[in-house]
Amino acid sequence: MTVRVGILGATGAVGQRFIQLLDDHPTFELAAVTASDESAGKSYREAAKWRVDTPIPDDVAEMEVRRTAVDDVPEDLDLVFSSLPSSAAADVEPAFAEAGFVVSSNSSNDRMAPDVPLTIPEVNADHLGLIEVQRDERGWDGALIKNPNCSTITMTPTLAALDAFGLERVHVSTLQAVSGAGYSGVTSMEIIDNAIPHIGGEEEKMESESRKLLGSFDGAELSLHDADVSASCNRIPTLDGHLENVFAELAEDPSVDDVADAMREFPGIDLPSAPDPLIHVFEEPTRPQPRLDRMHGDGMAISAGGIQETSTGIKYNCLAHNTIRGAAGASVLNGELLVEEGWV
Amino acid sequence: MTVRVGILGATGAVGQRFIQLLDDHPTFELAAVTASDESAGKSYREAAKWRVDTPIPDDVAEMEVRRTAVDDVPEDLDLVFSSLPSSAAADVEPAFAEAGFVVSSNSSNDRMAPDVPLTIPEVNADHLGLIEVQRDERGWDGALIKNPNCSTITMTPTLAALDAFGLERVHVSTLQAVSGAGYSGVTSMEIIDNAIPHIGGEEEKMESESRKLLGSFDGAELSLHDADVSASCNRIPTLDGHLENVFAELAEDPSVDDVADAMREFPGIDLPSAPDPLIHVFEEPTRPQPRLDRMHGDGMAISAGGIQETSTGIKYNCLAHNTIRGAAGASVLNGELLVEEGWV
Amino acid sequence: MTVRVGILGATGAVGQRFIQLLDDHPTFELAAVTASDESAGKSYREAAKWRVDTPIPDDVAEMEVRRTAVDDVPEDLDLVFSSLPSSAAADVEPAFAEAGFVVSSNSSNDRMAPDVPLTIPEVNADHLGLIEVQRDERGWDGALIKNPNCSTITMTPTLAALDAFGLERVHVSTLQAVSGAGYSGVTSMEIIDNAIPHIGGEEEKMESESRKLLGSFDGAELSLHDADVSASCNRIPTLDGHLENVFAELAEDPSVDDVADAMREFPGIDLPSAPDPLIHVFEEPTRPQPRLDRMHGDGMAISAGGIQETSTGIKYNCLAHNTIRGAAGASVLNGELLVEEGWV
Amino acid sequence: MTVRVGILGATGAVGQRFIQLLDDHPTFELAAVTASDESAGKSYREAAKWRVDTPIPDDVAEMEVRRTAVDDVPEDLDLVFSSLPSSAAADVEPAFAEAGFVVSSNSSNDRMAPDVPLTIPEVNADHLGLIEVQRDERGWDGALIKNPNCSTITMTPTLAALDAFGLERVHVSTLQAVSGAGYSGVTSMEIIDNAIPHIGGEEEKMESESRKLLGSFDGAELSLHDADVSASCNRIPTLDGHLENVFAELAEDPSVDDVADAMREFPGIDLPSAPDPLIHVFEEPTRPQPRLDRMHGDGMAISAGGIQETSTGIKYNCLAHNTIRGAAGASVLNGELLVEEGWV
Repeated sequence: MTVRVGILGATGAVGQRFIQLLDDHPTFELAAVTASDESAGKSYREAAKWRVDTPIPDDVAEMEVRRTAVDDVPEDLDLVFSSLPSSAAADVEPAFAEAGFVVSSNSSNDRMAPDVPLTIPEVNADHLGLIEVQRDERGWDGALIKNPNCSTITMTPTLAALDAFGLERVHVSTLQAVSGAGYSGVTSMEIIDNAIPHIGGEEEKMESESRKLLGSFDGAELSLHDADVSASCNRIPTLDGHLENVFAELAEDPSVDDVADAMREFPGIDLPSAPDPLIHVFEEPTRPQPRLDRMHGDGMAISAGGIQETSTGIKYNCLAHNTIRGAAGASVLNGELLVEEGWV
Repeated sequence: MTVRVGILGATGAVGQRFIQLLDDHPTFELAAVTASDESAGKSYREAAKWRVDTPIPDDVAEMEVRRTAVDDVPEDLDLVFSSLPSSAAADVEPAFAEAGFVVSSNSSNDRMAPDVPLTIPEVNADHLGLIEVQRDERGWDGALIKNPNCSTITMTPTLAALDAFGLERVHVSTLQAVSGAGYSGVTSMEIIDNAIPHIGGEEEKMESESRKLLGSFDGAELSLHDADVSASCNRIPTLDGHLENVFAELAEDPSVDDVADAMREFPGIDLPSAPDPLIHVFEEPTRPQPRLDRMHGDGMAISAGGIQETSTGIKYNCLAHNTIRGAAGASVLNGELLVEEGWV
Repeated sequence: MTVRVGILGATGAVGQRFIQLLDDHPTFELAAVTASDESAGKSYREAAKWRVDTPIPDDVAEMEVRRTAVDDVPEDLDLVFSSLPSSAAADVEPAFAEAGFVVSSNSSNDRMAPDVPLTIPEVNADHLGLIEVQRDERGWDGALIKNPNCSTITMTPTLAALDAFGLERVHVSTLQAVSGAGYSGVTSMEIIDNAIPHIGGEEEKMESESRKLLGSFDGAELSLHDADVSASCNRIPTLDGHLENVFAELAEDPSVDDVADAMREFPGIDLPSAPDPLIHVFEEPTRPQPRLDRMHGDGMAISAGGIQETSTGIKYNCLAHNTIRGAAGASVLNGELLVEEGWV
Repeated sequence: MTVRVGILGATGAVGQRFIQLLDDHPTFELAAVTASDESAGKSYREAAKWRVDTPIPDDVAEMEVRRTAVDDVPEDLDLVFSSLPSSAAADVEPAFAEAGFVVSSNSSNDRMAPDVPLTIPEVNADHLGLIEVQRDERGWDGALIKNPNCSTITMTPTLAALDAFGLERVHVSTLQAVSGAGYSGVTSMEIIDNAIPHIGGEEEKMESESRKLLGSFDGAELSLHDADVSASCNRIPTLDGHLENVFAELAEDPSVDDVADAMREFPGIDLPSAPDPLIHVFEEPTRPQPRLDRMHGDGMAISAGGIQETSTGIKYNCLAHNTIRGAAGASVLNGELLVEEGWV
C-alpha cells in the first residue's frame, strides 16, 4: 500500500526533517511540496537552503515547489503534513481540511481546540475519535490533527507511565536545544557562554498540552487530565535534544524500581517510525545527555534517568530529539497512525 | 584597622579568586598563602597556574608559598580563609581552629555539623552565635565557620525573602557553569553541544544547606527550617554563573508584585564586599542570563526574574556568580562579618 | 576643550560600542544619535536593543534618536562617527562631508578610494594629509576618514613593526569571533561545534587595506606598500577577539628576539584611547588567546606571541578585540587624532 | 580470509575508535585487547569508560583485557594495532615487532625513523618496501609501520594532488577539534569562548611528516620531499574534525579548475575502509565545515574547498575527521594495505 503525501511549508527546518524522514518510507510517497509564493515554481533544491546532515534525496531536489494553497496541490493526495508557521497555518490548514485533505500538523495553532485531536500515538491513540466530532461540527470531509510541542512530547510519555501511580502535580524545568527555535531563531551572540530562562509561550504549551494528551475521551468529549503542571523553560547552547528535569507528585508511593519498571514497560506501538522500546531508562545518574542520547531509536525514543524518590513523589530527567520525535517525526508517526486506523 | 589574613589552599581556582578579591581590600592584608607540600618554598607565581582574568598582584606573586600546617603559618594571623579540597580540610581546618585561628572556609566538609555556623551574612548573621557553642563543645580558642555551596547560595537569599509568605516547599532545577567543578573538572569533550543532568552530591547540599541557612538559632541550638527542598542539578556549557529555576510553594498567596517587592527590599548588609541591593529583580522575562548578569554587584549580587504565580505559589529564576558570590567572595564576606561582629 | 560629536547609525552593535566608549570621554561630548527612519523620534532606550555589558549611560538613554540626514543633526557638531551599513554609508557619509562635517567612519565603503585616508593612528597618522587632496578634489568643507576592517587592524601594527626588516610577503589565517558579523550575523545553528572557512569580502579587505595602511604618502599621492598579502578567513565559536596566524617573509633575517623587540618597542601614540604599550608580546607559546587577552589596554591593545623563525622569515600569532580596537574604538581613536592634528 | 588482530592500548579514546571500526570488519577479527596493568583481568566493559557514539560490541564488552606485553597476547595474532601513549609505545612496539608481530601504530614515536614506513595508503603505499630495510637492520621477524599525525593526514592527500604542479612551499594554519587531545586533553574552562594558538609538537609533526609522506623510496632509502612546510596550529571549540587553511606555492601556474580536477581525480585505493572518492571538492566557498563534513566517506574522506589563486600558487581549505581518518581509521587502513600487499 502506498499513501501519497504532501508537505505544506517544506523548505524550513522542520520541512527539511520531513523530507529526510519520508525518504525511503515504507508507506508514504512524497508527491508534492509547498512553500511561500516566492519559492513557488523553483526546484526544491533552489528553494530550500538545505541544512540537514544527509543529502537532499535526488527526486525531491528536482521536484517543483508549489504555492501553499488548496488549488495548487494535486487533488489525489491522501495525507498532508504541515510545518507552516502558525500564523499561516491558522487559515491554510482548515482550508485544506475543508477541501477534503487529512492534515497531520506540527504547527502550534489549534492544538487546544476541543475538537482537534492532539496525539502521541503511544499515549492517546484513541483521541483520534475526535475526528468524528470535528467533522460533525465543522462539516469537513478532511480532518486536522496535531502533535504537541517538542518540549511537551519529551516528558509526556514518562508522565503517562507515572500516571499508573496517580499523577497529581508536575514541576518541570527544561534545557532546550537551539534548533527548537528554527535555523535562525537563536543567534550565536545570544547563547555562547550563556543560557536564556524564557522561551515565549513554551511554558503555557507544556502546561496545557500535557493535560490534553493525558486526558480521556469518552467518544464525544475530551476531558483534560486534572494534574497541575508548572513549567520553566530555558534555552541552552546545545544543537539538538531537549533535556527536562521533572518533579512529579503522586497519589501512591512507588519505589524507584517501580517507576523505572513502569517506564521501561510502557507499551510502544506497532508503526513504522515507532521506537522499541518507547522509553529507554538509564541506571547511570549522569544520563540521559543531549549529545549522547538524542539519537536513540533513530531520534524517536524517549530517554529517562536519574529517578529518585522525593517527599511527595518522584524526580527524574527525560530527553528526546526535539526536531525528530519533537516535530517532524511526531507528525509522521501521527500520519502512520491515521493510516493504520483507517482515517486515510 | 588592618586584619592580617592567610589563605589555605591558595593556588587552586578558588584560591586564586581569594587573591583577586583580597587585592586592595580595605581591611584585609594578605600575609600568608599555603598549598600542598610540592608547592611549598616556591614563589606564588611559580606555584600557581594563574588563570584569573586580572594579573597576579605583584606582592603576592613574589610571596613564598608555605606548607598547609599550623606550624608553617605566622602565629599572628587574625583570620584564615580556606579553599582546601574537603578531604584535606576535614583534618586541617579543625587543627587550625584548635590552634586559635578563626577559619572562614569554603570547603564542603562539616557544613551541616550542628555547632558549625553556616552563614550568608545578609540571611543569617545571627548564626555566628554558634561559635560560642562550638568553643564550649570543642574547647577551641579559634573557630570554624562555613559558607554554603555555590548552588545553595544562589537561591537562598530569594528564599529568605519569600519566607515572609510562609515558605513550605521548594522544587529547584539548576543550570550550572563549568567553573563550579574547578579548572579541570569538566572536559570539553563532555560538555560542548551537551548538558549533564547530575553533579555528585550537589542536590543533597542544596536540600540540606538551605534549610540550615533559613533555620533559627535560639542562642543554644540551631533548628533547620521545615521547608521541604527538592533539587535537580545540571551542568551546562557556560563558564561562570549558576542559573536556577525555583518553584516555591507558599502558605500565603502573594501577587507577583508582592514577591518582586519582597526580593527588592530584602535588606543587604553594610560590609565592604556586600552588594547593594542584594537582589536585583528584572522585569524582562528573559533575564537574568549568566553571561549578562553574573557580574552585578562585582559578582556579589543575586539576580532574579521571571516571577510568575503558580497554583501553589510562585515560580521564578535566580542567578549568581558561582566562584565569586558562590565561593571565594562568600568566604570573604563571612570574614568581614566576623570582623564586624568582633569575633576577629 | 570639548568636542561635540554625533553618531550615525547609533543603535546597532558598533553604534552601542561607540556609546560605551564615549561615556566619560575626556574630550568628546555626545550631542546627537541617529538611526533609521523607524527609530527616529524615539528615545535611544526605546530604539536600541541594548546588549553591551555595561548599562546605557543615563543621559544617552533619554536622548531622542534623529533621522540619519544632514538636516536632522545639529549644525554645530564638530565630529561625526559613522557605523552605518556600508550600503547606506555610501550616500550618507559624502553628504555629511560635503555639508562640512568631519566624518570618522567604520563603514567599509570607500576605504580604498585614493583620496580617503585609511588610518590607524599609531601606524600611519601622516596619511591624514590626504584630507587636503580630498577637499581639493571633491570641493568639501568637511572630510571623510576611515578605519580599516577589524581583521586588518589586528595584524597591521605587527606588520608595521616587522617592516623594519623588509616585509615582502604575508600569508595570514584568521580565527574570527562571531561579534564581527553583528548581533544576528551568525546563528547558533551555524557555529556551535563548527567553524566556517569563509567570510564574504574579508580576505580581499585584509589583502588591500593592509597595503594602503603600510603605504607611503608623499603629500600628494598615496602609494600602496608592495608586500604581497594573502589571507584565509574563518569564523569560529568565540564571542569577541580575532586571533590571526601570520607567516611573514622578510628581506632580512631577524632573530625571534629581534622581532619581539621590534614589536614591543613599536611606538604608540599619545591620545586618550591609545594603549600603552601598543603591542603586548607574550613569551608563552599558548598566548594570546581571545578570551584571556582581548581586553588588554581596555580592548585597544594588540597582543602577539608564538614568534618563531621559518625558512623565509617569521611566523607568529596576533590578536585584538574586534569590536573595540577593530571597530568603534578605531573610529574614536581616529577622531582623537583628527582633534590632535587640528582637523577638527 | 580472516586476519586475527589485537589492539594495544584499547581502552583510550583512539582504542575505542579502533573497536568501533573493527566491529563487523570484513577481514579483521578482534582477538585480543590490552591496556595498562590496572585494567588487566577486567572485562573490557569494566575497564573502558566507553564514550563512542555507538554501543560497545557485545563480544568485545565481555572480552578480558590483557596486560600490554608480548607474553600476554596470543602468539597467533596476525596483526596488532597500537594506540599506546608514545612514551609507552617507544619500548613496547619494538618488542612486539621483534617477537614477530606486525604492528600498525598510530603512536607518534619513531614516525621519522628512516627505516619505519609512515604511510597513507592512497599517497605512498610503496613506502611499505621499507619493511625489508627495517627487518635487515633490526633483525626483526615482525614489522613496525606508522600512520602520521591527524593534522598531517588532513592536508597530505591534497598536497600529493598539488604536487602534479610542482609543490615548493606550504604555509598551513589549522583549526583543530578538542578530541585530538584525547578525552580529557582540553578542559572546558580552557576552550569555551576561546581558541588556543599552540598544540605542543604539532607544528613540527606537520612540517616533517608531510615531507616524508610525499618523499620517494628507491627500494633502499627514503628521500624527503624538498618542499618547505611551515605550520601554525590552533585548538578551537569543535568536537571532531580538523579544518586547515593551506597556502601552496607551486612551480607551475594551474587554474582553480586545474587544481579542483587534480584533487577530485586523485586516485583512491581499493581497500575495505578506503573512501571513494578520496577527496571531496566543494564549489561552495563556505565548505568544508567540521560539523557538516567530517563524516563524508564514513569519516575516511578528505574534504576540500575555497580553492583560489594567489600570486605564488593556490590557497584552499581542507578537512578530515581527526579520530577516524586521522587516527584509528588511518591505522586500520594501513592494516588493510599490509594484508593486501602480503606483509600479513
